[in-house]
Amino acid sequence: MRQETRDHELTAASLHGSLTEPALESMNFLNEVAMRYPDAVSFASGRPLEDFFDVALLHEYIDTYCRYLRDELGYDEVGVNRTLFQYGRTKGIVHELVSRQLAADEGITADPEAIVVTVGCQEAMFITARALRADERDVLLAISPTYVGMTGAARLADMPVWPVRSGALGVDLDDLGRQVRRARQAGLRPRGCYVMPDFANPSGVSLTIPLRHELLDLAAAEDILLLEDNPYGLFHDGRHLPALKALDTHRQVVYLGSFAKTGFPGARVGYVVADQRVAADDGCVSLLADELSKIKSMVTVNTSAVAQALVAGKLLHHDFSMAAANRRETAAYLRNLRQLLDGLRRRFAGWEGTVTWNSPSGGFFAVVTLPFPADDELLERSAHEYRVLWTPMSHFNPTGTGCNRCGSPAVSSPRTRSRKASPGSPRSWRG
Amino acid sequence: MRQETRDHELTAASLHGSLTEPALESMNFLNEVAMRYPDAVSFASGRPLEDFFDVALLHEYIDTYCRYLRDELGYDEVGVNRTLFQYGRTKGIVHELVSRQLAADEGITADPEAIVVTVGCQEAMFITARALRADERDVLLAISPTYVGMTGAARLADMPVWPVRSGALGVDLDDLGRQVRRARQAGLRPRGCYVMPDFANPSGVSLTIPLRHELLDLAAAEDILLLEDNPYGLFHDGRHLPALKALDTHRQVVYLGSFAKTGFPGARVGYVVADQRVAADDGCVSLLADELSKIKSMVTVNTSAVAQALVAGKLLHHDFSMAAANRRETAAYLRNLRQLLDGLRRRFAGWEGTVTWNSPSGGFFAVVTLPFPADDELLERSAHEYRVLWTPMSHFNPTGTGCNRCGSPAVSSPRTRSRKASPGSPRSWRG
Repeated sequence: MRQETRDHELTAASLHGSLTEPALESMNFLNEVAMRYPDAVSFASGRPLEDFFDVALLHEYIDTYCRYLRDELGYDEVGVNRTLFQYGRTKGIVHELVSRQLAADEGITADPEAIVVTVGCQEAMFITARALRADERDVLLAISPTYVGMTGAARLADMPVWPVRSGALGVDLDDLGRQVRRARQAGLRPRGCYVMPDFANPSGVSLTIPLRHELLDLAAAEDILLLEDNPYGLFHDGRHLPALKALDTHRQVVYLGSFAKTGFPGARVGYVVADQRVAADDGCVSLLADELSKIKSMVTVNTSAVAQALVAGKLLHHDFSMAAANRRETAAYLRNLRQLLDGLRRRFAGWEGTVTWNSPSGGFFAVVTLPFPADDELLERSAHEYRVLWTPMSHFNPTGTGCNRCGSPAVSSPRTRSRKASPGSPRSWRG
Repeated sequence: MRQETRDHELTAASLHGSLTEPALESMNFLNEVAMRYPDAVSFASGRPLEDFFDVALLHEYIDTYCRYLRDELGYDEVGVNRTLFQYGRTKGIVHELVSRQLAADEGITADPEAIVVTVGCQEAMFITARALRADERDVLLAISPTYVGMTGAARLADMPVWPVRSGALGVDLDDLGRQVRRARQAGLRPRGCYVMPDFANPSGVSLTIPLRHELLDLAAAEDILLLEDNPYGLFHDGRHLPALKALDTHRQVVYLGSFAKTGFPGARVGYVVADQRVAADDGCVSLLADELSKIKSMVTVNTSAVAQALVAGKLLHHDFSMAAANRRETAAYLRNLRQLLDGLRRRFAGWEGTVTWNSPSGGFFAVVTLPFPADDELLERSAHEYRVLWTPMSHFNPTGTGCNRCGSPAVSSPRTRSRKASPGSPRSWRG
C-alpha cells in the first residue's frame, strides 16, 4: 500500500540556527572564492608550509611510536596492535607525551590526567563551549577580532559570543571588566574569555608579559575562566613569551592546544588542558578534563589512535620539542614575514598615515588598514582583477548579541587582513 | 597587585545537563566496572575481533591509497603529500570510494556529494542531531532499547529522545505512529526516528523485508526522516537483508555509516549519507549533506586525511567490498554466536520459559531475559563473584522526557544483555 509521495524535503528554517550564522557563512564564502581562483596569490588561508611534507614521514612516525610502546612502555605485539587498531581511552593515549611537550616548549606543568586529546583544536573548542553552556544565561566573551572557529563552536553550543575590544595591545582590560559587569547586570553568566595571546588570528598581535599578568589578575578578580588558544606561539623570532597557562597559579586558564601548525593539519590532533576542579552537589570533585571527556565520548568517542601516533612519533623524534621539530618552518615563516613587511614598506612609501599595518614579530598574520572599506566586494575585485586573495576583517567580528559592531576599533574600521603563511604560492611573499 | 585568590572552581550544576544524563553516566559506569575487573570474561563491550590487527597493515593501507592518488587520480608527489598532510575537504576525500562500497556491499546508490565522511559514526550522529534540533520543539524518536551513542549525541544537541516500542519484530509501527501524533499534539516536531534495522545494538533484532517497507511507508506518510544506523549488517550468515537506504525511493532515510567494525575502530572513520534537499527562504536548494558539512567544520574541521587513507586502503585492497574484507572476521563472529546460543541451551536446559533469550542470525548482540532484575547491582556481583561482565538493558532506555519507562516491554522487563564479540577473551565463548 505504498502511498503517492514526493521526496522528503527540509526547510532551512527548520535546521539549527548556526547554519545561517555569519561565522559559518564566512568560512564558506572564503573557501568558495579561493576555489574560484585557484591560481591566485593567496594571503587568505592559515595553511602551514608544505615544503617538508613527505609520506615517508608517516611511516616513520608510526614506527617510532610503536617502538616507544614496546621499548618504553613494555607492550608486546598484541598490545601494540590493539593500541593502534582498537577503541581507546577517551581522553587520549599520548597525554604523557603532550605533557612533556608543554614542559619542554612552553614551561607549562600539566598533569597528564588534566589533558584531553581531541580531533584538532576545533573539537577542544567545541567540547569546552558545550560544557560551559548550561542554559540561556551563559555567554562567552572573546577578544575581537575573533578566530571564527571559536565563534562557530560556541554558536553550535547555542552560546552567544560577546566581543571584547582588543585595542592596540591585544586586550582592553577596561572593556573586559565592563563586559563582565554588563553581562552580570543582565542576569547572564560570563563563563570565560577567549584569547589568543601570541600572534593572534587574525590580528597578529601578542600580549606583553605585564599585560598577561594583569589579564590573569582581572580574570581571577572577576571569577571568569580564560580560554587560551595558542597555535602560533612557537613561530617566534627568538623572543618567546610565556603562555598564560605557564603563568597561571590559580587554575584560571583552560589551554586549547593545537598540533595543526607544529605537527601537521592532516593528523587532526589537538588537546585541551583543563585542570579546574568541578564540585558536584554530592561532594564529589572531578577535573574539568573528565567532564570534557564525557562530552567528547558523545562527539567522536576517542581521537584516532593512528592520528595520535603520528603526532607522538614527531614528538619522540624531536625530544618532545615542537620548537625543535619546526626550526626550518619557523625560519621560512619569519623570512616570509620580513618579505611581507618589506614589500608593504616599499609599495606604500609616500602613503604614511593613509595605508597602515602592524608589524608582528612572528606567527602567521598581519593586518593592513586602508582608507576605504575592505569588504567582500573588494575581495571579489581583488581576486578577479589582480588574482590576489586576502580576508576581510569583518569576518572575524563575533556575533550573537546586538552589540556585534560595538567591539574594538580594530573591527569597526575598514581593514584588510594579510597572511604570512602561503606555502602553496611562495611567490606571494616577494612583494 | 596580585589579589589573594583561591583556585578557580566550577560547580557541576553550572555545566551542560548532558553531563549528568544517564546515557553518559552509563558509559562511565560500564567502563569503570570493566576497568576494575580487567581479567573478567567480558560480554559487555562492542569491540571487534583483534586477531587480524597488524601494524604492517597500516603501512600497506597508506601506500595503497597513495598509489591510487598517483595512478588513478593522476596526482604528482606534491599533490599526494599535500593530500595526506594538509587541511582537506570538509566533506572528506574518500567519498567516491565510500559510494562504491555502498554499491558493492549494500546495493545503495549514493551520490558521493551526498556523503560526509566523519570522525566515526558518532560524529555523524552528533552533526545530524545538531542540524535537526533547531529549537525546543524538536524531538527525536528512537526504537527502544536504543544505542547510547545516539541518545548521548541527541542530548548534547539538547534534543529529547522519545522511545518507540520495538516489540518482538524490532519496531512497533502502531507505537511509532502514536508517538508521532502525541508529539505533534503537544506542539512538538518529531524530526525523525532512529533505527538499527540489522542486528540492532543492543537487542540483536533485525527487521524483516516487509517490515522495512512498511516502516518506510509510515515514515513517508508521517513525513519524518528515518536515521538508519548499520554497523553490523555485513556480519550475517549469508542471508543479507537490504538496508532501508537501499529501499528508499523518497529520500526518507539518512544513512549513518560506520567503519569501526568493518574497517577498524582506531581509524575513527564513519560517514553519513544525507541526500535530502533543503530549501531556503530565498529559493536556494542545498543538500542536507552540505548543511551537515558546515556543522562538521565547527566540530572537527575535517576528518584526518591519514585516517581516511587507512579505510580507503582497505577498501582498495578488497575491490571496494567490506564484506570481502571481513570474511574471516564474519566466520569468527558466527562461530562465537553459535557457541553462545549452544551454551545457553546447554546451561539452561530445564529452565524453558523462565530464562529465555533471542537467537539473532548474525551481528554482535543477543539478549537474555531472567526471572529477576538484571541491574547494575547484579552486574557488580557477577563481576566480583564470577568474573563475568555483561550489560544491564536498563542502560539502553532513552530518556529526556517523562515517559522514559513507558517504552517497549523489552525495556521495562528485567533483562541482561549479552554480547557476542569478546575478542580480548575468546575463552568467553566456550561457555
